[in-house]
Amino acid sequence: MTRKLIAEFIGTLWLVLGGCGSAVLAASVPDLGIGYIGVSLAFGLSVLTMVYTIGTISGCHLNPAVTIGLWIAGRTERREVLPYIMAQVLGGIFGAIILYLIASGQPNFELGNFAANGFGEHSPNQYDIFSVLTTEVIMTFIFMLIILGSTHSSAPKGFAGISIGLGLTLIHLMSIPVSNTSVNPARSTSQALFVGGWALEQLWLFWLAPIAGAILAGIFYEYLSSQIDEVE
Amino acid sequence: MTRKLIAEFIGTLWLVLGGCGSAVLAASVPDLGIGYIGVSLAFGLSVLTMVYTIGTISGCHLNPAVTIGLWIAGRTERREVLPYIMAQVLGGIFGAIILYLIASGQPNFELGNFAANGFGEHSPNQYDIFSVLTTEVIMTFIFMLIILGSTHSSAPKGFAGISIGLGLTLIHLMSIPVSNTSVNPARSTSQALFVGGWALEQLWLFWLAPIAGAILAGIFYEYLSSQIDEVE
Amino acid sequence: MTRKLIAEFIGTLWLVLGGCGSAVLAASVPDLGIGYIGVSLAFGLSVLTMVYTIGTISGCHLNPAVTIGLWIAGRTERREVLPYIMAQVLGGIFGAIILYLIASGQPNFELGNFAANGFGEHSPNQYDIFSVLTTEVIMTFIFMLIILGSTHSSAPKGFAGISIGLGLTLIHLMSIPVSNTSVNPARSTSQALFVGGWALEQLWLFWLAPIAGAILAGIFYEYLSSQIDEVE
Amino acid sequence: MTRKLIAEFIGTLWLVLGGCGSAVLAASVPDLGIGYIGVSLAFGLSVLTMVYTIGTISGCHLNPAVTIGLWIAGRTERREVLPYIMAQVLGGIFGAIILYLIASGQPNFELGNFAANGFGEHSPNQYDIFSVLTTEVIMTFIFMLIILGSTHSSAPKGFAGISIGLGLTLIHLMSIPVSNTSVNPARSTSQALFVGGWALEQLWLFWLAPIAGAILAGIFYEYLSSQIDEVE
Repeated sequence: MTRKLIAEFIGTLWLVLGGCGSAVLAASVPDLGIGYIGVSLAFGLSVLTMVYTIGTISGCHLNPAVTIGLWIAGRTERREVLPYIMAQVLGGIFGAIILYLIASGQPNFELGNFAANGFGEHSPNQYDIFSVLTTEVIMTFIFMLIILGSTHSSAPKGFAGISIGLGLTLIHLMSIPVSNTSVNPARSTSQALFVGGWALEQLWLFWLAPIAGAILAGIFYEYLSSQIDEVE
Repeated sequence: MTRKLIAEFIGTLWLVLGGCGSAVLAASVPDLGIGYIGVSLAFGLSVLTMVYTIGTISGCHLNPAVTIGLWIAGRTERREVLPYIMAQVLGGIFGAIILYLIASGQPNFELGNFAANGFGEHSPNQYDIFSVLTTEVIMTFIFMLIILGSTHSSAPKGFAGISIGLGLTLIHLMSIPVSNTSVNPARSTSQALFVGGWALEQLWLFWLAPIAGAILAGIFYEYLSSQIDEVE
Repeated sequence: MTRKLIAEFIGTLWLVLGGCGSAVLAASVPDLGIGYIGVSLAFGLSVLTMVYTIGTISGCHLNPAVTIGLWIAGRTERREVLPYIMAQVLGGIFGAIILYLIASGQPNFELGNFAANGFGEHSPNQYDIFSVLTTEVIMTFIFMLIILGSTHSSAPKGFAGISIGLGLTLIHLMSIPVSNTSVNPARSTSQALFVGGWALEQLWLFWLAPIAGAILAGIFYEYLSSQIDEVE
Repeated sequence: MTRKLIAEFIGTLWLVLGGCGSAVLAASVPDLGIGYIGVSLAFGLSVLTMVYTIGTISGCHLNPAVTIGLWIAGRTERREVLPYIMAQVLGGIFGAIILYLIASGQPNFELGNFAANGFGEHSPNQYDIFSVLTTEVIMTFIFMLIILGSTHSSAPKGFAGISIGLGLTLIHLMSIPVSNTSVNPARSTSQALFVGGWALEQLWLFWLAPIAGAILAGIFYEYLSSQIDEVE
């Protein structure tokens, strides 16, 4: 169990450092910056790489909503849920600390939004709370379906890392302008702790919405996949 | 059958929400926007992810032209064609509704072309009807060949999702400026319903051309693949 | 044999239509255009998709230099070399014809360089003949090594399409500014026929250099891979 | 052994020519340039392609830090460490020579930083030595974990090239603005030799930090992976 938690810790650290790091350090560099498309790739590749690195150790959840969704779908044991979530949140926070240390070594450093998630005036493009809530619930719902489907015993073996990682890329391609894209409460928490104020006040939504989406997907996929078992 | 239709519904919803959503929400954000290349990736990844998620449930067509092409090629039963198409069109419409709800939560929201497909003055770069028709027929023809070839029993197992998804990305990379890229009547219909007017008037082409391309490919691949069976 | 040639014809048509098409139609669209990175992806994905679509029919060469390199390495029969090359050149030309028909349906259409390859003042960034020659020889040398290595019996099964396709993407990422990237005489010929003049005068280099690189790789890989057989 | 060294030589040549080449030749082309995202892709794809091309010959390290990390983790024999490193450094230097020959054939050629790595005023965005050191140690630590995990016997077969290559892409997406991204002493050495002066003076960091990160990962993964063996 300890090693599983260390794997989740390192993996979520990497998701925050690689994903939020790309946003903070590289997205807005004049002329050469990677933009939202580079940030979308970065988040997706952080998950893709970790699936192949620690997938056989911890299952590579890296996300409290995913752990809860997998539990609802009967793929993770109940006793692992809380420890996993704690390891993920801690990993995210350490990722954010490292990112802060790196980013602050630049002469013109300003914390800015530090890639935190927000709605209303704190949404990258000022989307209101309803848009952000809808986006986060539905994006996590689909993300969870992709995870459950791609790791189902009937799916081609080995491709889950590609499908899940690039699924997260697609989610970011679409929704960064809306909510800065969370679908992951651990990733939201680590950044909010640094930004404080509004980011902490709005943090509830980025726990509520992803977890709601993941639970719905866990229930829904149970129904959908009974089709597969029938067929086999 | 019901579960297959639900899978097609969800999958096409995701294609429209992820693909058209990236175009509407993220393509044109100043400085950081994802541009046509990000939209191309988004459409491709929506299909890539769904192949691994629902491929073993419904076959993951997500596209009336593809369903018809697979039927012509003897890979789908006749009785499934109409229900599949209905599920796809409905899924596309629901995807567009969700996208509208999200997009309209932004203070400066304007519907614009809402990623609808068009020709002449409604082509993104004013390509005439002949260019758009040619593009849509040939792009769907090749897309269908990629689908038929990559899922053929002689092709490497498991890679079809990558090949088909990234094939759709390539089609978009080239043809967004021409027709905004359809190759999928369900995706065109959902957006045209919101835009109305010219988009509905021009919708016929985005049913006719993709279906024509897919039928041609279904017939043509029968001939090509007899080579493979010979060899084996 | 006929079906193999048809597969090479279609595949090379797709490489030219998808790759050069992305360059001509989409690279330079203001603000949203796909740039050199999108064109690089397009060329790579045209090959990736075709490997999974026609790989088991014709081997998916799509390139006279590749066919010659495979022949040198003992992977293709001598009697197939000339017919393959003819099918590839014809396929490229048909791809260019289709691209011309589509592109000319735009009100402000100008032929420009039509994605033709060139050196000196016709290099995209004015690289001299020595730079272009060096680039084309070495890029094709490495491309051919990637093809020979990724399809070797000791390499992981099924991944060759990804490796070869994305290898072509990498080659373009680096060398479009130098030579507009050929590494493929068929792709150079089709575009030169439309541009005429300088493009035809410089076409010799884009046959000579890729074929030289491919032959060197064919010989070199023989030596390298004897290592693998030793090990097994 | 000779053939293994030749494979490492060619592979590292390709990493430097493809990766640094994309940075030098294509990143900054006005309007159409590939930017940091294209350079990130290029470095990653150079490794991805070589894993499938020479992986079964030499193991495809292409990086002195990786060779040392694999030795620490018991995956490479001690007697191979020094010869591998020499082949990698020589390969990098030849890659830089070829790149110089190509790049200097452009009328406005200036050497500039020639994609060399640096800190302080020589960091692309002026990050101080502490940020650069932290970045290089941690990025190589994670890179090495990805390599060790993705090639572990329990990981899905064949996917290591994708995971490792795209892992290097992610590392670049985040850290090019900080250190121009090394994580590879051979790649840093070849470029520093051409730039001279400050680049040679700062070169020690780009040997020290990657090797430290790789050694830490080698030790750490031993511990983590004992979990996997336990489970099996």
